Amino acid sequence: MPNYRIDIEYDGTNFVGWQRQENGKSIQGLIEDAIKKLISEDISICGAGRTDAGVHALSQVASFKTLKEVDIDTVRDGLNQYLRPHPISIISARIVDNDFHARFSAKMRLYEYKIVNRRPPLTIDNNKAWCVHKKLNLKQMLDQSFFFIGRHDLNAFRSSNCQSNSSIKTINSFEIFKESENIIFKISAKSFLHSQVRIMVGTLVDIGTGLITKTINEIISSKERSFAGQTAPACGLYLKQIDY
Amino acid sequence: MPNYRIDIEYDGTNFVGWQRQENGKSIQGLIEDAIKKLISEDISICGAGRTDAGVHALSQVASFKTLKEVDIDTVRDGLNQYLRPHPISIISARIVDNDFHARFSAKMRLYEYKIVNRRPPLTIDNNKAWCVHKKLNLKQMLDQSFFFIGRHDLNAFRSSNCQSNSSIKTINSFEIFKESENIIFKISAKSFLHSQVRIMVGTLVDIGTGLITKTINEIISSKERSFAGQTAPACGLYLKQIDY
Repeated sequence: MPNYRIDIEYDGTNFVGWQRQENGKSIQGLIEDAIKKLISEDISICGAGRTDAGVHALSQVASFKTLKEVDIDTVRDGLNQYLRPHPISIISARIVDNDFHARFSAKMRLYEYKIVNRRPPLTIDNNKAWCVHKKLNLKQMLDQSFFFIGRHDLNAFRSSNCQSNSSIKTINSFEIFKESENIIFKISAKSFLHSQVRIMVGTLVDIGTGLITKTINEIISSKERSFAGQTAPACGLYLKQIDY
Repeated sequence: MPNYRIDIEYDGTNFVGWQRQENGKSIQGLIEDAIKKLISEDISICGAGRTDAGVHALSQVASFKTLKEVDIDTVRDGLNQYLRPHPISIISARIVDNDFHARFSAKMRLYEYKIVNRRPPLTIDNNKAWCVHKKLNLKQMLDQSFFFIGRHDLNAFRSSNCQSNSSIKTINSFEIFKESENIIFKISAKSFLHSQVRIMVGTLVDIGTGLITKTINEIISSKERSFAGQTAPACGLYLKQIDY
């Protein structure tokens, strides 16, 4: 059975998220439907990151095995054909080693979060960034962000419906860039807790506006979700890259 | 009568264009409606560039005079309030000299055009860029683009419904940047003919795919619209900056 890896870009705005669910259109579900149309096989695909409703991907990765072998250009172009008009695009398809698994083989996941920090509402970036209207103290956010780097119990930074057994995670990098009114966060780790990136970004924003005066260090040590800040909206979050 | 200048950002996708028209929602019309709601005056505003349906603006400029003076923060925030939920945003408002006119005082207009050159369809950039699926010879496009710079009769590069008396225009700069799969054109001039940027970009794309083998020099000299290439779609075009 050939094992396929597909790299996928999507605009998550109008989906219930990556994962197939009963209550609406999911990216996984639509890709599985397209595979069924293309090769007449009922296949369950596995994604590297289960992005939530509204979260985007520049390079989600999924893998699946088929009974019959299909040319990889046909996989890419055929799936793109059947995925229309949904904003989901197969950027590349390739055949990989049989033991490759999009989720379990992943060594590093990189997420990006985009804030536009300005008073006027968004237009072109609508649903593609979080517009923070209050002035942010970026230096303070940057100083505090360094505390995230390394291995910590991040129980304060996961949503109440996180199903992970352990809340100990290692953040490999946490960078913040400012480009005119845009503030871009780049965060990499082997894996993340549910809503972790959004709670980390939301907490830094609450520090940047002065709403939270505790340090990130203190919040991590507390292990209390209530000590951390708001969950940043899904629309600013992008699954950027998976390394294997 | 105080004279106001407002700088405006918009996503042009679902509008008939900048100019007020009978057949649908225009940016000008919606801003005039918002002004009416804010200060109860029937005012006609003048924009620096009459963008077509689907064309975006990062910084359109408009000016208008009112009978009573209104605080500029109130103009910006009040108009933004009344413009909701339309993707039109007043980035700034200021009071300017009485002889300032958004259209006639403009010394330079800068347009940007965004192409994504790849085989898979767009998702996040849907309606925000032109997806060119065929491989482009960028070097040839760049070499040919230099012919546009300077003063020329650009009759070959205007749409049949262009109402300008003269087709002689001076292109001050024509730059092309490649950033991974994105190709960005930046073109500045005091003024442009109707659809000029889109025909210039479309012609360079036709040169880049090999469909057109004439040089830009030859096409300019011909003064024949039929010698130039396709009109690039509106969705990739951004009015970027107006200098006064």
